[in-house]
Amino acid sequence: MEQNKPLIMVTNDDGCQAKGLKKLASLMMPLGNVVVISTDRVMSAKSHSITTTPTLTGILVDEKPGYREFLCNGTPVDCVKIGYQWLLDRKPDLVVSGINHGSNASTNVIYSGTMAAAIEACMDGINAIGFSLDCYDLDADFDHLDDYIVAITKKVLAEGLPPGVCLNVNFPKRSDEPIKGLKVCRQAKAKWVENYSPCEDGNGGTCLKLGGKFIFEDSGGDTDYDALQNNYVSLVPTHFDLTAKQYMEWMERFVNTI
Amino acid sequence: MEQNKPLIMVTNDDGCQAKGLKKLASLMMPLGNVVVISTDRVMSAKSHSITTTPTLTGILVDEKPGYREFLCNGTPVDCVKIGYQWLLDRKPDLVVSGINHGSNASTNVIYSGTMAAAIEACMDGINAIGFSLDCYDLDADFDHLDDYIVAITKKVLAEGLPPGVCLNVNFPKRSDEPIKGLKVCRQAKAKWVENYSPCEDGNGGTCLKLGGKFIFEDSGGDTDYDALQNNYVSLVPTHFDLTAKQYMEWMERFVNTI
Repeated sequence: MEQNKPLIMVTNDDGCQAKGLKKLASLMMPLGNVVVISTDRVMSAKSHSITTTPTLTGILVDEKPGYREFLCNGTPVDCVKIGYQWLLDRKPDLVVSGINHGSNASTNVIYSGTMAAAIEACMDGINAIGFSLDCYDLDADFDHLDDYIVAITKKVLAEGLPPGVCLNVNFPKRSDEPIKGLKVCRQAKAKWVENYSPCEDGNGGTCLKLGGKFIFEDSGGDTDYDALQNNYVSLVPTHFDLTAKQYMEWMERFVNTI
Repeated sequence: MEQNKPLIMVTNDDGCQAKGLKKLASLMMPLGNVVVISTDRVMSAKSHSITTTPTLTGILVDEKPGYREFLCNGTPVDCVKIGYQWLLDRKPDLVVSGINHGSNASTNVIYSGTMAAAIEACMDGINAIGFSLDCYDLDADFDHLDDYIVAITKKVLAEGLPPGVCLNVNFPKRSDEPIKGLKVCRQAKAKWVENYSPCEDGNGGTCLKLGGKFIFEDSGGDTDYDALQNNYVSLVPTHFDLTAKQYMEWMERFVNTI
């Protein structure tokens, strides 16, 4: 590792073979010393889940100048935690997570392992960015994102983010038109409505198969969802304080009459 | 089921045998028709994780007048989702989650399966409350909470909560002094600093065992953590919009100079 370069941790929730992870690691190489700590399998929708049983491992699988790669058998948040509290000798200067195969705009951020990894680093005072592409294809085309990812990362490395804030960056799927630019957004209101269907469990029993559709409930032109629909890159400053501060007075009245 | 009573779903993340779950279900019985849908094993720290593989089951294990109980082999959020999208013929009027064995005050809310279940219901427009006790003992004493839980639940059933808001209610551990009262709070700033130690994995290999301590970083007298320390019940109005709105202008300047 070169001493004067920033230490950049790369993780994701799509597993070590994901094209988006490899792309992100390759983009980080010119920017610092890179440590990839990825889940050893797909860990989508694991949110901020952590492994509390004594089963976690982190194994070095590749090493070359300026680059190390570890596999972790836990969740994306486990990757971050064991990264600098076990595998590395210091905290990284930046954690980047992704590039996720699929949007983490709107309420998808709540379920996302990719964004949970960024939020975990943020909780520990480390600059962190989650990158996601609005396309689930395993072989998705990420090349139109290169300049944006490098520019955003360089800016965060140079100036840092406010305490307790990380970035949720979502990119539109490649189309015939070039991306229109960057847009600061708020998280859109939306929800998944599931549609479970019965299927055979392989042992003569029945289990449920998850399906569903994303219901958009927000007409604002300032949302991440709207930005993606209009071919912009969305950037949402994201924190981990779930307090609904606009309802504190309402709550006081509510509690006073219990 | 009696037609004129509210339908109350009870879930948790400590598994179907947890004393806190049984206590909460028993407190709900006089207030409505109760459906318990609990995880079939301990699912602490599963956050908002969901099961995306076709393996989910929900099995009716008990039924008596005004009461049904199902076991689900997924996460707490799976319990909520399959609850009203598969097992029941309508959405419940209220989802209560807990009583968790252990505090979900401060940043614990991010990792909590108990609070994730409440937040999931809230995302779907259902009134929801997470109840937690600041005590991890399996045989914890919950009796000093009865009147508070019933009063808070009755109030929510009668008046509802604002759209997109659920309640994170934490109780102090039983002590010689009675609880001082209810306090509206914000989520305290704090973090877990893990301490992993190597242990044998049972197959001749080594894995990591999770330990750690909770680092309190917030001197405010208006936090949930502070309320618990001073023997109050903390109530935090909790939402799922992670946008750090106080940094939107900062973000605009940041993006404009990329």
